[in-house]
Amino acid sequence: MIQPSEAPSLYQQVAAKVERMIRSGTLRPGERIPSVRRASAQHGVSLTTAVQAYIELENRGLIEARPKSGFFVKPQFRAQLLEPVTSRPVHSATLVGVGSLQSRLFDTVRMPDVVPLGAAYPGHENLPTTKLSRMMAATARSAAERGISYDMPPGSEQLRRQIAKRSPDRGLQLSPDDIITTCGGTEALALCLRAVTKSGDVVAVESPTYFGILQLIESLGLKALEIPMHPRDGMDLDTLEHALKRRKIAACLAVPNFSNPLGSLMPDENKRRLVDLLARRHVPLIEDDVNGGLYHRGTRPRVATSYDRGGSVMLCGSFSKTVAPGYRVGWVVPGRYYEKVKGLKLTSTLATASLPQLAIAELMANGGYDHHLRSLRRNLTTQIQQMSEAIAASFPEGTKLTRPGGGFVLWVELPEKVSALELHRRALSEKISIAPGPMFSARQSFGNFIRINCGHPWSGRIEQAVEILGRLTRKLI
Amino acid sequence: MIQPSEAPSLYQQVAAKVERMIRSGTLRPGERIPSVRRASAQHGVSLTTAVQAYIELENRGLIEARPKSGFFVKPQFRAQLLEPVTSRPVHSATLVGVGSLQSRLFDTVRMPDVVPLGAAYPGHENLPTTKLSRMMAATARSAAERGISYDMPPGSEQLRRQIAKRSPDRGLQLSPDDIITTCGGTEALALCLRAVTKSGDVVAVESPTYFGILQLIESLGLKALEIPMHPRDGMDLDTLEHALKRRKIAACLAVPNFSNPLGSLMPDENKRRLVDLLARRHVPLIEDDVNGGLYHRGTRPRVATSYDRGGSVMLCGSFSKTVAPGYRVGWVVPGRYYEKVKGLKLTSTLATASLPQLAIAELMANGGYDHHLRSLRRNLTTQIQQMSEAIAASFPEGTKLTRPGGGFVLWVELPEKVSALELHRRALSEKISIAPGPMFSARQSFGNFIRINCGHPWSGRIEQAVEILGRLTRKLI
Repeated sequence: MIQPSEAPSLYQQVAAKVERMIRSGTLRPGERIPSVRRASAQHGVSLTTAVQAYIELENRGLIEARPKSGFFVKPQFRAQLLEPVTSRPVHSATLVGVGSLQSRLFDTVRMPDVVPLGAAYPGHENLPTTKLSRMMAATARSAAERGISYDMPPGSEQLRRQIAKRSPDRGLQLSPDDIITTCGGTEALALCLRAVTKSGDVVAVESPTYFGILQLIESLGLKALEIPMHPRDGMDLDTLEHALKRRKIAACLAVPNFSNPLGSLMPDENKRRLVDLLARRHVPLIEDDVNGGLYHRGTRPRVATSYDRGGSVMLCGSFSKTVAPGYRVGWVVPGRYYEKVKGLKLTSTLATASLPQLAIAELMANGGYDHHLRSLRRNLTTQIQQMSEAIAASFPEGTKLTRPGGGFVLWVELPEKVSALELHRRALSEKISIAPGPMFSARQSFGNFIRINCGHPWSGRIEQAVEILGRLTRKLI
Repeated sequence: MIQPSEAPSLYQQVAAKVERMIRSGTLRPGERIPSVRRASAQHGVSLTTAVQAYIELENRGLIEARPKSGFFVKPQFRAQLLEPVTSRPVHSATLVGVGSLQSRLFDTVRMPDVVPLGAAYPGHENLPTTKLSRMMAATARSAAERGISYDMPPGSEQLRRQIAKRSPDRGLQLSPDDIITTCGGTEALALCLRAVTKSGDVVAVESPTYFGILQLIESLGLKALEIPMHPRDGMDLDTLEHALKRRKIAACLAVPNFSNPLGSLMPDENKRRLVDLLARRHVPLIEDDVNGGLYHRGTRPRVATSYDRGGSVMLCGSFSKTVAPGYRVGWVVPGRYYEKVKGLKLTSTLATASLPQLAIAELMANGGYDHHLRSLRRNLTTQIQQMSEAIAASFPEGTKLTRPGGGFVLWVELPEKVSALELHRRALSEKISIAPGPMFSARQSFGNFIRINCGHPWSGRIEQAVEILGRLTRKLI
């Protein structure tokens, strides 16, 4: 589960031991586990180390603290599966060839009779549908002329002000003038990549990574260099550093906060190292923070960009995962590439639609946006747990599962023999959409992995779909 | 005025003579001109030739027929200027370098205190502002879930059905399944170009052409081969044919209906020839029909695409010039490149905003869209005439002016000594935006040309701006 190069520290060893006791049934759901003092004695470690181990287990949702009572095995994770291991992509750059899988996957979004576990988006029940629609209606009427007129780049000042206002949550201090709005996060990423690469260049990406990024890289004639990912900590920086020494890399595209599909969260010290590593070699970092606001516990993680010291970092965000995918509003902080990105925006789509920007700005200013985000996070956390349990109950032995700290997707490692592409095909014929693993790698690795979208409220229909998926998977062993 | 290679035919000679009589004041505004029979005798030509000459003059807005009374000099064109001649770009492909002029030009769109004669867009007074805003408000409420959800490519079926329904006006018979909606016409063009070219390829374009097209070509690392334009008939097909024989051309991008900036309308027989020329050599044609609906007289011109016989033609359209620039809704009929364009759309912006598509579809279905288009065309025709007269009154002798058959821009040739870039700078310091000629050529030709936007209702403010422009121009001689 852990690579040789990454020897587990003492507290991780203790945590692993307790985890085994939980998994083996030695410690049952709801049962009190040894006190910290007791654990310290049992395992021969300091009190601090024992506390660290318990915090780790709590962070991973295995145990919970009850005030004045101690630590207990969390009921909802009684059937939790093991996590997938760190990925090991081949260490050479690849011309991407994800093919038409993406197009077919998104086709299912248009099909109401297909159970939507494929494309990653939150269901409208989790979004401020009614409130935002009301605000859009009011804005359309009050903004009349502004609504139908061009809102030329950098885009709506109202919206940029709201984004800037919240930037301290990300560990940043942005001004509205730092920001350019875009047609969704997808355009933001595309503009950043185009600003710093030319056909044939190599881009370092996560592996596995969101297939949209791979398709984008392919469409621009770039090559993807896949960097291994730890399911918790994200990109393996040793490998990245090694690669940077060996070859010319034009840019690095990373999702430090709740990567897609792993849901990994890069520790802050790694974020700092990532930024420094790249800055030393003048390699631009494109940071995709589309999921940063969807943390399941604690507070919002800061962005790697917050460690930037005048380097070449570009930060991308979006409202598609938190407010309204259909509004197509994203944004980018292009740093020193501001003019380049603005110019490319003009040739790409000229401007971002005016009214969606104004309506979202209004929601952020006066529409209980933060309240909505809190309830969204709560719902996503629950949905991830419900899906995790359902998968554990239905899928065959040997199935492994990520434990994301944020976002709303799960990355499932199926028994080695199972072909995710075949499962994908059979699931679709049962009107269930899933995202097969090979989509998430330029080399079409992850042949026995699937990504499951947990953006929709739990329902009998979804529960049944997971059962069917489990059955289909068993048949493929 | 006419190139040596294009000897004027007999009727054109007669028309030119009558035109001179009008310009010299021999024939005054409102005055009856010689009857066709008389003209036939006067100029020693057949009756048919004389009729042709008068039709030509009428088409150009110089004279008008009054039933049972004969032909009269049109009052509003008493001060009409000569037209610019066919352009003569250098016959080699050029890496585009329009620089940051475009970005600066669009910046002025955000400045309410600048008189908007630069960027080409219709003023909101000419658009269905109130009606569309009402429809958007109603749609936002009624479509709630659909409005906030992804509308994945090919985009809104409602909208595609409306576009297909009106395709016979263009001389086509489209089905909704032929169409992909886009984030404005800009994205449609970008997707088409990206579908059929790779970095370093040569693209044949009009000269002068819309600077957005040049910027797009530059941003994709392509080279522009500038093909001369006749101010009335559009692209010089002899030159294009010659170029096609001499070199590898990856695509041809043309605006046969009311090109920008010339307003030229390619005759139908030329459209057919254009399509055939390119099809024979398997060179894709990208047809931009963004202005086709804005004809000033007669009926909607058909698209060159209507002559396509299974070839490689892509048709692009948009609602930015007719309904709402700020809604960012365009569309493309990519023909055999359908899957390619759809895939690129996913990597470019993923999807087009949902509500703007639905609101426009509603306007087209139930909102008096055709009625609006009629009044828009009437207004634009009037505004072009008003601007033409004002320029004639204020600008120095030697100034020439296009007589567009559609659209809402004028292309002004200033006396040779005048630097359009300098005029642009001085005008901007007087808070007047114009588009200087060099923006419309990859080689920054047209140094003494400017494009004037006539999309806004005539006003004292605009009238004054034109006077100032005239004064500034005189100072530059």
